Amino acid sequence: MYHTEIRSKDKIVTIGRDLPAVIIGERINPTGKKKFGQALLARDFEAVRREAMTQVEQGADVLDVNVGVAGVDEVALLPEVVKIVAATADVPLCIDSANPQALAAALKVYEGKALVNSVTGEEKSIDSVLPVVKEYGAAVVGLLMDDEGISNDPEKRLAIASKIVERAEKAGIERSDIVIDCLTMTVSSDHNAAVLTLKTIERVVEELGTNIILGISNVSFGLPDRHSITKTMLAMALRAGLTCVIMDPTAEGMRRTMKSADLLLGRDEWAMNYLAEYRQYSEQA
Amino acid sequence: MYHTEIRSKDKIVTIGRDLPAVIIGERINPTGKKKFGQALLARDFEAVRREAMTQVEQGADVLDVNVGVAGVDEVALLPEVVKIVAATADVPLCIDSANPQALAAALKVYEGKALVNSVTGEEKSIDSVLPVVKEYGAAVVGLLMDDEGISNDPEKRLAIASKIVERAEKAGIERSDIVIDCLTMTVSSDHNAAVLTLKTIERVVEELGTNIILGISNVSFGLPDRHSITKTMLAMALRAGLTCVIMDPTAEGMRRTMKSADLLLGRDEWAMNYLAEYRQYSEQA
Repeated sequence: MYHTEIRSKDKIVTIGRDLPAVIIGERINPTGKKKFGQALLARDFEAVRREAMTQVEQGADVLDVNVGVAGVDEVALLPEVVKIVAATADVPLCIDSANPQALAAALKVYEGKALVNSVTGEEKSIDSVLPVVKEYGAAVVGLLMDDEGISNDPEKRLAIASKIVERAEKAGIERSDIVIDCLTMTVSSDHNAAVLTLKTIERVVEELGTNIILGISNVSFGLPDRHSITKTMLAMALRAGLTCVIMDPTAEGMRRTMKSADLLLGRDEWAMNYLAEYRQYSEQA
Repeated sequence: MYHTEIRSKDKIVTIGRDLPAVIIGERINPTGKKKFGQALLARDFEAVRREAMTQVEQGADVLDVNVGVAGVDEVALLPEVVKIVAATADVPLCIDSANPQALAAALKVYEGKALVNSVTGEEKSIDSVLPVVKEYGAAVVGLLMDDEGISNDPEKRLAIASKIVERAEKAGIERSDIVIDCLTMTVSSDHNAAVLTLKTIERVVEELGTNIILGISNVSFGLPDRHSITKTMLAMALRAGLTCVIMDPTAEGMRRTMKSADLLLGRDEWAMNYLAEYRQYSEQA
């Protein structure tokens, strides 16, 4: 069992299978949000600050920062937004970009130990992202796709995880600083998608023991009452070995489902965290 | 993988790990319901009929029938109530009593193949219940306690399951007609209770392959917003191998969680059942 520690200036968050699951707020991201993207391009950061504050109020332990929108200069903008988010909310950041130069620029200005999201199993990604992660002493998300794309075989996904871990360790990054993203595809387009994700989590935990991250809500895309499906997937994935979740902490019932899962998985003796969350948020459930 | 088939006069319900999970409505039961118990003692069966109809309207595939209240003559009352429920709702019944004579009397009048709830690993229970199950060609729930009580060790619970299966097979009852109840204790009084149940399910599935039943709501006893905890446990238990659930089908979100789980576990291609349930009940979610 590994503990992944990340830090803001004053706050440490530890990810581990014997600890309560960690919530990474996903809302600072222009994907599918036209207004938010336009504001980023216009360097209007009010929405960024608001999303940072709201998500922490709603229980986010970590904030994901993604500025990837068409027309943006990520190398210039990502460090700027990282500084703004860090100044607004004192929680560790997950710096989210596929661009190694943007990651390096953001890590350079970040006062803490970030989680870099992400390296993949693609040779180009491994060669460009891992040295940056090592240089700035960050932790890193390993995304289970490689030069052949995304596999539908849990054993092939595990093989990509093994490759990422091996190459990261060779680059001087400890296994405790690697968090594997097992990928959640959409169950409405492939009825085996969720089982595949769950099996991949179980295999990676078994063979590599690393922490596991998922962006969970994608599983329910295109279906009505998405929250019910997403919460059910969340419960199953936490049982399988998921330890941190990229999600919208404001989404109905998601945070409560996580606290319920921690309680049921024996990570919340006397239900202290469950009851604290209930008391803090009971009016909105 | 085994299929457990139970039948009312005109309807067959099949329990199996490759099929959608089965809902057994638990509300025809006087435990903790003073008025319901008094009505039973007074042989006023209006509430029984109402609970039968409501639960089937709310998605119950099977109805549990329990008349165990202090002062009642179960041998006389259980067959009477079984007949009334069977006449009210055409779904198979789960006949619920620890009294072998009451079970025999109820099975005698039941036109179908019932699920008997339950035999335990106690010698007295095995010797008295299994012959009745065999005589009437019923299926049977095996409850994982024995003469030493309820164990906190999944391997010991598995050993009781093995004993029940062995003795039932020796009595001429096929393994496909045995459904193992892995027991859900309350997580607020033992923070390992849920993990123990989940591990027991996984071990019984692995070693014996039988269908699995749980009364799920007990897990959240004594805590606020019980539904969130119960739904989260339900999701995890279905992933572990649970195939039929004794529950209140009218409880908020429980049925939707089951349909979500079936979808995520690859047992609902094209989300047909999920969407049908959503359309039928969407106003009440």
